[in-house]
Amino acid sequence: MENYSKDCVVGIDIGGTNTKYGIVNRSGKILLSRSIPTKGHLPFSDFLSRSTSEIKQHINNLDSSYECLAVGMGVPDGNFLNGMMHDPPNFSWSNVPIASLFSELFECPVVITNDANAAAMGEARYGVAQKYDHFIEITLGTGLGSGLYVDGSVVLGHSGHAGEMGHIIVEQGGRQCECGLSGCLEMYVSNKGIMETIKECLIRHPESSLNGIIFGDLNGKHIDDAFDNSDKAAVECYQYTGEMLGKGLATAVSILSPEAFIFYGGFSNAGERLLASTKNSMNKHLMDVFKGTVTLKVSNMKEGTGAILGATALAWDVADDRIKLNY
Amino acid sequence: MENYSKDCVVGIDIGGTNTKYGIVNRSGKILLSRSIPTKGHLPFSDFLSRSTSEIKQHINNLDSSYECLAVGMGVPDGNFLNGMMHDPPNFSWSNVPIASLFSELFECPVVITNDANAAAMGEARYGVAQKYDHFIEITLGTGLGSGLYVDGSVVLGHSGHAGEMGHIIVEQGGRQCECGLSGCLEMYVSNKGIMETIKECLIRHPESSLNGIIFGDLNGKHIDDAFDNSDKAAVECYQYTGEMLGKGLATAVSILSPEAFIFYGGFSNAGERLLASTKNSMNKHLMDVFKGTVTLKVSNMKEGTGAILGATALAWDVADDRIKLNY
Repeated sequence: MENYSKDCVVGIDIGGTNTKYGIVNRSGKILLSRSIPTKGHLPFSDFLSRSTSEIKQHINNLDSSYECLAVGMGVPDGNFLNGMMHDPPNFSWSNVPIASLFSELFECPVVITNDANAAAMGEARYGVAQKYDHFIEITLGTGLGSGLYVDGSVVLGHSGHAGEMGHIIVEQGGRQCECGLSGCLEMYVSNKGIMETIKECLIRHPESSLNGIIFGDLNGKHIDDAFDNSDKAAVECYQYTGEMLGKGLATAVSILSPEAFIFYGGFSNAGERLLASTKNSMNKHLMDVFKGTVTLKVSNMKEGTGAILGATALAWDVADDRIKLNY
Repeated sequence: MENYSKDCVVGIDIGGTNTKYGIVNRSGKILLSRSIPTKGHLPFSDFLSRSTSEIKQHINNLDSSYECLAVGMGVPDGNFLNGMMHDPPNFSWSNVPIASLFSELFECPVVITNDANAAAMGEARYGVAQKYDHFIEITLGTGLGSGLYVDGSVVLGHSGHAGEMGHIIVEQGGRQCECGLSGCLEMYVSNKGIMETIKECLIRHPESSLNGIIFGDLNGKHIDDAFDNSDKAAVECYQYTGEMLGKGLATAVSILSPEAFIFYGGFSNAGERLLASTKNSMNKHLMDVFKGTVTLKVSNMKEGTGAILGATALAWDVADDRIKLNY
């Protein structure tokens, strides 16, 4: 039992700006967590060597008898099925066999999935989704990601890329998305989408207190505070965002009939300010049979730890042979 | 082994006009199949006694030593989870605990699901979907139904009503649907939807040969023939239908990433006439990562037998204890 308790896994969440990681024991306790700059504009080899040497050093510092059994990674455009990172936007890394490259340096199995699936796995194992067999985790960051649970398992789909709810089209001929389509959900419901909307609302409402803030400094907290003071620009912004989000959720409900949507990260902190109008819009776009069957909730996982814990949940599955990898 | 080979199950597919049923042995061979009028305007008890006495008689006539181990039913708005038929449109039956009522008369377990799930199960076990773990069966009848397979299992969702792809909104402020929403996919892609479209096309193209057919008699075969003769109304009709269908499929791909869509019943007979424009539209509405990952196919199951075989697949699962029922 002594040795058993020295088992650990590492969870890594690669973000556009920073990469967070944690070393986690069998009880799900984060023994140590840190953040390093990702530097996606530099070659991948820089990130690889920098992150692995730092993490291995930390494991050793914790206790030299700790044994890292597996590493789980939440990777933008990461594919669980083949261990590849597929040329994510804002990175110069192109297509990288990221799982096998990390595995060589860590000398243990490395499993990857995309960041939204990692958050969903964390939610299922440690968060508010523990009681749900059918739920959808919506991650609100720069973009909008989603991780689907059906019958208690995450859905990868045939291509491994299931869960691209950010690219459901909610407005025909709407805002142009980087993916090439227009009117994608994430062009309205994400950091970049909401910033675009508030900009439009501020033009319509010159009296808004938010016009006193330099636009580059404006963030969700400012909009939340203004909303609480009945600022018309803020109220209109969340009303419109909720309308669009509700449309997207209704589509997913008609297809999958989940019990809950869990919102994680970024603008999920707006809570009921955003979710009240979202729920109205969702119900307006649903058949009667689905009305009242779906709960909207904000995640209870601390921002940053959700994806780390999810990645470690996957790592334990690999360490304990519940999942076999093909890479 | 003698007795074992006398095992059989019954598959029943309740349709708006006719109900088809089949008696099927362990090899999936349909020993006998028949159709009876459903008469949904009469009380449910009429249908119940008429159908059960006729089917029991047939089993007995086949061979008095045949033993019916279970009955599977494809039921409009049928819910696998609770065995209820939920007030389907065009029936006067309201909410009926259909599984338990049939079970009493058949004296064996009765399992139900909706008609699209039954077709998907038939496709998975006996049809072109045998090789797919992730596929979506699209049933084209009066309306549009869908049955989802994820990781080799049918998806019921939390409510039991997953797969209502007919009610994805593909046209904001579009045609009014009986469900209360407007712009639902089935208002464009289904018997009623396509008939509405061809009516509009025929007004724009008075020269069309289809104008020589009394509208009530006009059917898919007429439109197919006209299409093959480059009739502008028919070409425009399938072009528009494919455009709408492609939008709906793209949404489902972004969420679930299936390997294939299989089209069963009614207008699926149009085949490539409809699927060519559908595929174009689907790809136009998809992110690059999904392009080329999805096949569109017409079912190879004879119309009418698909749902019967699917219902029997479910019946065998119950007969052989792979599924436990809560009703």
